[in-house]
Amino acid sequence: MEKGKITKAMLGRLPGYLAYLRNIYEQDVPFVSATRIASALSLGEVQVRKDLNAVCGRGKPKMGYSTEELLNCIENRLGQNSLTPAVLVGAGRLGKALLEYDEFEKYGVKIVAAFDCNERILKLHWNMELYPMTQFGDFCRSNDVKIGIITVGEGSAQSVCDQMVESGIKAIWNFAPCRLNVPEDVVFLQENLAISLAYLNNKLLTKQQKETEYEY
Amino acid sequence: MEKGKITKAMLGRLPGYLAYLRNIYEQDVPFVSATRIASALSLGEVQVRKDLNAVCGRGKPKMGYSTEELLNCIENRLGQNSLTPAVLVGAGRLGKALLEYDEFEKYGVKIVAAFDCNERILKLHWNMELYPMTQFGDFCRSNDVKIGIITVGEGSAQSVCDQMVESGIKAIWNFAPCRLNVPEDVVFLQENLAISLAYLNNKLLTKQQKETEYEY
Repeated sequence: MEKGKITKAMLGRLPGYLAYLRNIYEQDVPFVSATRIASALSLGEVQVRKDLNAVCGRGKPKMGYSTEELLNCIENRLGQNSLTPAVLVGAGRLGKALLEYDEFEKYGVKIVAAFDCNERILKLHWNMELYPMTQFGDFCRSNDVKIGIITVGEGSAQSVCDQMVESGIKAIWNFAPCRLNVPEDVVFLQENLAISLAYLNNKLLTKQQKETEYEY
Repeated sequence: MEKGKITKAMLGRLPGYLAYLRNIYEQDVPFVSATRIASALSLGEVQVRKDLNAVCGRGKPKMGYSTEELLNCIENRLGQNSLTPAVLVGAGRLGKALLEYDEFEKYGVKIVAAFDCNERILKLHWNMELYPMTQFGDFCRSNDVKIGIITVGEGSAQSVCDQMVESGIKAIWNFAPCRLNVPEDVVFLQENLAISLAYLNNKLLTKQQKETEYEY
């Protein structure tokens, strides 16, 4: 895999590498090998080697990677040196659950504000302002926000999406269970939590079927 | 791809096929081709052909698929003829958001009860009983529940997981941001919402870098 190409699964492993590297960096370990990282984190060596290669190129023969260089590469890749600001629209239960979720910053993104059409719920929330939608465009433009998260219902998702695009948002993560029309230059990710559960169910059913077959 | 093997992405498309097939079945359309489905749902024909093949084997040459047979295959695959019951442990914001999420049944799974250690929040909830953890094992055994969803915090996730395994749960979906020890015969799926956001951010950053390069 060429350096630079990175998969979702790889991204998921980067914070683990980062925590380990910070630890050994503090212990003044100057070089580290894929083998050592793999063993410390109980991961496959081939996988670790691929991951590091994609993020930081090849290590030095017999030396491995400079701990500091590898740390920097992963921090850069995760965008930890400059958290990308994101906004969320729709402060219902799911929206609030995401606002509470404290893993995003480990992956380089910070939700900086939440918006909702419902004026009743305009109040401070976990140290975060909840703004009315009327202020959405101004906020995004003055804070140079490029990532938007949609947690409104199906009925208003497209209109929220359109407002995001008009306000300069360039990447959208949609939780509403419907297709949205998005311009080609906007990165779009459809989230469907039900698919994970369906996948689990399917694996379970297939496994049970096999076990039943074996019984006869 | 052999019949039977099914990916997460395929599963995500099955409810769309199902809705379309039910529609034409009501209109007494006896046969349907992959081409027709692809065009109706704006999907690639090759993709639709692969999906149908995995779920229902090959269609008849020149005839396509029997609408009824295809409907049955997809309903079976999604487990819609017999919803699989699931339980959720941890009725915080995320847990409640999942309890509210109404897409799961389209994919063959129904959350039938929620559990929490916190006695303060024991009350009826969207027509669903919220039970104390002390009743967990009995409930799972008497209702033959095989799927468990963990939405408690990192600190209690492993103990909840252990209780699930002891209670006969055979598939676990974990939202707590930590690794869990699970016996080999239990299907396990780790959810990490931050990875989706990190992936979106990474695509955005890569795109912006490329655009900057083009400018010079």
